[in-house]
Amino acid sequence: MPGNSFGQMFRVTTWGESHGTALGAVIDGCPPGIELTAEIIQRELDRRRPGRGGATSPRKEPDRVEIMSGIFRPERSERELTTGTPISLVIFNKDAHSKSYSHLQDVYRPGHGDMTYDAKYGIRDHRGGGRASARETAARVAAGAVAAQLLRRHDIEVTAYTVALGGIYADRRDLSVIGDNRLFCPDSEAAARMEERIARVRAEGDTLGGIVEIRALCPPGLGEPVFDKLDGELARALMSIGAVKGVEIGAGFRVADMLGSENNDPLSPAGFLGNNAGGILAGISNGEPLIIRVAVKPIPSIHKEQQTVTRGNEPVTIKVGGRHDISAIPRIVPVCEAMVRLTLADHLLRQLALRAARG
Amino acid sequence: MPGNSFGQMFRVTTWGESHGTALGAVIDGCPPGIELTAEIIQRELDRRRPGRGGATSPRKEPDRVEIMSGIFRPERSERELTTGTPISLVIFNKDAHSKSYSHLQDVYRPGHGDMTYDAKYGIRDHRGGGRASARETAARVAAGAVAAQLLRRHDIEVTAYTVALGGIYADRRDLSVIGDNRLFCPDSEAAARMEERIARVRAEGDTLGGIVEIRALCPPGLGEPVFDKLDGELARALMSIGAVKGVEIGAGFRVADMLGSENNDPLSPAGFLGNNAGGILAGISNGEPLIIRVAVKPIPSIHKEQQTVTRGNEPVTIKVGGRHDISAIPRIVPVCEAMVRLTLADHLLRQLALRAARG
Amino acid sequence: MPGNSFGQMFRVTTWGESHGTALGAVIDGCPPGIELTAEIIQRELDRRRPGRGGATSPRKEPDRVEIMSGIFRPERSERELTTGTPISLVIFNKDAHSKSYSHLQDVYRPGHGDMTYDAKYGIRDHRGGGRASARETAARVAAGAVAAQLLRRHDIEVTAYTVALGGIYADRRDLSVIGDNRLFCPDSEAAARMEERIARVRAEGDTLGGIVEIRALCPPGLGEPVFDKLDGELARALMSIGAVKGVEIGAGFRVADMLGSENNDPLSPAGFLGNNAGGILAGISNGEPLIIRVAVKPIPSIHKEQQTVTRGNEPVTIKVGGRHDISAIPRIVPVCEAMVRLTLADHLLRQLALRAARG
Amino acid sequence: MPGNSFGQMFRVTTWGESHGTALGAVIDGCPPGIELTAEIIQRELDRRRPGRGGATSPRKEPDRVEIMSGIFRPERSERELTTGTPISLVIFNKDAHSKSYSHLQDVYRPGHGDMTYDAKYGIRDHRGGGRASARETAARVAAGAVAAQLLRRHDIEVTAYTVALGGIYADRRDLSVIGDNRLFCPDSEAAARMEERIARVRAEGDTLGGIVEIRALCPPGLGEPVFDKLDGELARALMSIGAVKGVEIGAGFRVADMLGSENNDPLSPAGFLGNNAGGILAGISNGEPLIIRVAVKPIPSIHKEQQTVTRGNEPVTIKVGGRHDISAIPRIVPVCEAMVRLTLADHLLRQLALRAARG
Repeated sequence: MPGNSFGQMFRVTTWGESHGTALGAVIDGCPPGIELTAEIIQRELDRRRPGRGGATSPRKEPDRVEIMSGIFRPERSERELTTGTPISLVIFNKDAHSKSYSHLQDVYRPGHGDMTYDAKYGIRDHRGGGRASARETAARVAAGAVAAQLLRRHDIEVTAYTVALGGIYADRRDLSVIGDNRLFCPDSEAAARMEERIARVRAEGDTLGGIVEIRALCPPGLGEPVFDKLDGELARALMSIGAVKGVEIGAGFRVADMLGSENNDPLSPAGFLGNNAGGILAGISNGEPLIIRVAVKPIPSIHKEQQTVTRGNEPVTIKVGGRHDISAIPRIVPVCEAMVRLTLADHLLRQLALRAARG
Repeated sequence: MPGNSFGQMFRVTTWGESHGTALGAVIDGCPPGIELTAEIIQRELDRRRPGRGGATSPRKEPDRVEIMSGIFRPERSERELTTGTPISLVIFNKDAHSKSYSHLQDVYRPGHGDMTYDAKYGIRDHRGGGRASARETAARVAAGAVAAQLLRRHDIEVTAYTVALGGIYADRRDLSVIGDNRLFCPDSEAAARMEERIARVRAEGDTLGGIVEIRALCPPGLGEPVFDKLDGELARALMSIGAVKGVEIGAGFRVADMLGSENNDPLSPAGFLGNNAGGILAGISNGEPLIIRVAVKPIPSIHKEQQTVTRGNEPVTIKVGGRHDISAIPRIVPVCEAMVRLTLADHLLRQLALRAARG
Repeated sequence: MPGNSFGQMFRVTTWGESHGTALGAVIDGCPPGIELTAEIIQRELDRRRPGRGGATSPRKEPDRVEIMSGIFRPERSERELTTGTPISLVIFNKDAHSKSYSHLQDVYRPGHGDMTYDAKYGIRDHRGGGRASARETAARVAAGAVAAQLLRRHDIEVTAYTVALGGIYADRRDLSVIGDNRLFCPDSEAAARMEERIARVRAEGDTLGGIVEIRALCPPGLGEPVFDKLDGELARALMSIGAVKGVEIGAGFRVADMLGSENNDPLSPAGFLGNNAGGILAGISNGEPLIIRVAVKPIPSIHKEQQTVTRGNEPVTIKVGGRHDISAIPRIVPVCEAMVRLTLADHLLRQLALRAARG
Repeated sequence: MPGNSFGQMFRVTTWGESHGTALGAVIDGCPPGIELTAEIIQRELDRRRPGRGGATSPRKEPDRVEIMSGIFRPERSERELTTGTPISLVIFNKDAHSKSYSHLQDVYRPGHGDMTYDAKYGIRDHRGGGRASARETAARVAAGAVAAQLLRRHDIEVTAYTVALGGIYADRRDLSVIGDNRLFCPDSEAAARMEERIARVRAEGDTLGGIVEIRALCPPGLGEPVFDKLDGELARALMSIGAVKGVEIGAGFRVADMLGSENNDPLSPAGFLGNNAGGILAGISNGEPLIIRVAVKPIPSIHKEQQTVTRGNEPVTIKVGGRHDISAIPRIVPVCEAMVRLTLADHLLRQLALRAARG
């Protein structure tokens, strides 16, 4: 029944509602001896905070993470290290205005989980979306920062960036510029046009979708056929982010129109001569960069009249106010990185086990 | 480490290599009292057998399934029923020609898992692709037929069909005609053009990709936030099929270009007025039909010279012969149905548990 | 790798070190609509607090539990209810004196996990035993109190009590008196003699073992053959408590000396005529009370010189001081109840699912 | 819901009924490169076959195991090796006489799972006990033989033997003689008296219980606190064998009467000076031999009149005939070894993963 854990060996359990006391994550299975401090995690959290990008709301969330367990500074060491016991991370909610949501407790907002949570559980914490709020992803980003510390030791690097927003597509993949614009876009010129698009749509009270691409450097051998293939696991990880409606690997949906002779990546003694596979063959990483793209739907909270029903199935119209972003991009970008990191950390441990045990 | 099981409560474990003695599936968690016979399963298996569609190879696989355990006919009953104990299904391999693959044991075929299996395991059953062969999906289809028996009792119906092949797209979704053509295509006219395309590409020794769409009637409430959301679980299930490189739900990648006001499905007392969500909101089914599309890559075994390397990393060219399909479509269509059924059976049981326990 | 979660459907993950910031539990899978408040949990926690029984140390642990997530009071309700989302429980550590343990960081205390934690993890939070401290069980008791709320609705009741301590055995099983003495003993006369034994051994700086018995009223049908049999699951649950070295069900080790004709419990239309089975047949509850006994080892921290080694394998003698109990009894009694409750809550949900899905 | 799998990383799923077509096991997670043949497994299976010991029935079960998948002989190798893919083992049932059980289909045999299977599943394959038959353990022994191949590479050895039967206790632990008598008893003189006891009880139509002890050589570091402690996992593994009613580690239930100063095992630079801990401290192996004892109940199928009820709850008396053993000992001895091996194989892989990932 429960669905709030992720991973088999590097296992994360998240908890917390948007307007509850706090939210957090427990990481079970992080190996001992990895350097970890609250500051290291905080850096990642700061990348997803509101106000950062032009598409985000002015709401201020301090989002300070605290490490409650699982690290220790040995007496003759200068560094805090993981101990192999569960790492508990907590972020207290400080900027919660429950009052502003009370008028929504009996109305189902279109595009939100209000109706489905009621159908499933028969009770729903409506304040700020409760557990279904995008705020839940803060715990994922915090946990992903722990995974990053492990991955770093094994030369695994994950970078996500915006390749489309509001119908504007990046033509370039210049990863050196993604830190230069607020949208994590690898095409500075496209980024500028995306910002214009955001400004226009904001004025109309509407919202925008887009596409995020994730690139990961990763050794060969990760992924567990046949059901826990690396591409399947990545797809699940990314599709578990609320706004994501599609996932593709390598050439993705373009393969539908390709010939086998076009799509196959030839091999040479120097490596693969192409990466239509997106770094994965038969569910196992092949040493080429992993390339994954996700489709991000427009934020459903729009400042326009919409037709809907109440909990009692009476027709009403609503106009959702409050502090809302124009797009899940760019805040979703670090969340995508976190989910890919958590997936790779889990599969790295699974592969290390297999190699250690190989006859 | 192990990745050969699928599902938490309706749990399937598959085993078997393409040219080994047999392949099979063990289903643990099927509720007792469900009618089940080998004939019921055989019907589904026959839908994926080679020779059925124009895109498939002439190889004859009898693929007779046997039920080894988990069913019983009570003395005063006329039906074989599940007993709640594990259901073991076995399909013996009869048409295996290991010899024809021996020249491939030290060469990595482009687009195949040869290189990655070696990288991961250090040993590889190369005969017919071993565990990485599409033949493995026969066990999935058999298990999916058991899931179908359970789903039927709860009015859940799953239908997959071909919506693109070799660049030809179906314009219509007339599910009443998908049994009338060999490609499971809901557009008879498009099906005819797809067959022409297949014939042409077959002559060239090349292969084709395409898109399969799956539609499922499903009650609201299925799916377990936040990591086991129904869309994430479906994405993983479908991406675990070897040829699948992309998965999208509802409007899918089109959401990238949409406004929130376009993408949101309004609600009325009679139900949703649109299905861009593809039947899932916040990871939980909303009662609308589930709509999922998967991108199917061209079969990598082409009858053309390709550049590659040996196990010892020496450059060679190969031309893969043998009995091969032109496209994973249509044989992949029943496999997609099976994976969606297995996912829904698992989440149905999870939701039944939650409802039974709700305070 | 990770081992800090318990249960499949009613799933508890605990975290926290004895002298860290806090310890806690996350419960994933608690059904929605169950009444829950911090007070309800606190009542159980207070039963295991030190100072309560004569065998416990004078250390004062306030141990106030806070519920961080997973409950909600609907606007027109007077009760806080679970929502089906994860319930996060936190107990902050207030009475931690890390200093008093610093001399133990390089010495392996006999009977403790110091040596094995080092062997496994290569790093060890030695303060108060770290994760291996009995203090960890506070999180179990808190989680068990949540399970109790669920079990109550299904008429499942669990009671643990002391049947032996320091070689003194209870002759009676009068459950009505277990609240009248500090040792949770169902034989008041034996309890008095146990207290005398404790006083004598305390003066000698030594410690005592004993036996706890658990009785649970439980409907038939719980337990999942063949590996998740109810008795196996209970054995694992109880043996996962640090001090427990043996578990037996019903007649337990006495069966070794019995004939089949003595051990079999005959059935009559009014029910079983005997309970040597301890309420479990073939791994499934039979409707009779579950009867389980656990052997509790003497607390290894004794106030006597002991021979041991340092981390560097140098011989030393140590005498463990500090605030220590004479016996894990009675504090372990509520922990045993908690573990049995968590096991039964998990198997109750599993059985509810099966019944709901039965054809 | 499902309970037919065991282990996290070395994962075994068993299936099959006593009088069905076959029974089997699928092992997922066995590392690649381990030598494995049907003969290696057969040797272990032969140790548990009926007719072997004086306490067993004259029934002949050929019990030939076949390996259906997961092994491969590379072209230039002389040995069959595991490939890292699932290993499917099947044992066909040849000596099944379903007829002889038909009169039992509506009667609940005392001490058996007839009543509880009906209560749980509502349907029951009564033939030979169906899934609840001791015959199910053949699949465990076969799987355990695979685990043994892995453990051998890591110098882990497991030996089980009979230390009590029918009230006669072995005084010696001379493991060199356990192959010399049919009861796997390490005390030849006691073995002779046990055989006399068996002969006498057989004549009376009754059956006997006993105690099996298991000793395992095992490196330090195995076991995953806090819930997957090695002792808890072993307890669950052994208690999942039908006839087992108690499990104890090291000093076991004797700890109840011991002082801390007696029970603690002191350490010296040469190792532990005692093994009351039974090789496990704080849930982690300490390098000393693991010592575990299990209480085995008398076989419930006795040749005497017993009082019971029908499925319709009518009182009847029955006298169970057929081919039955006098005691689960000695056939249970290899089953105990198998369950300990499966537990250690799983925890070995978990520990190898942790060591490989340690910072």
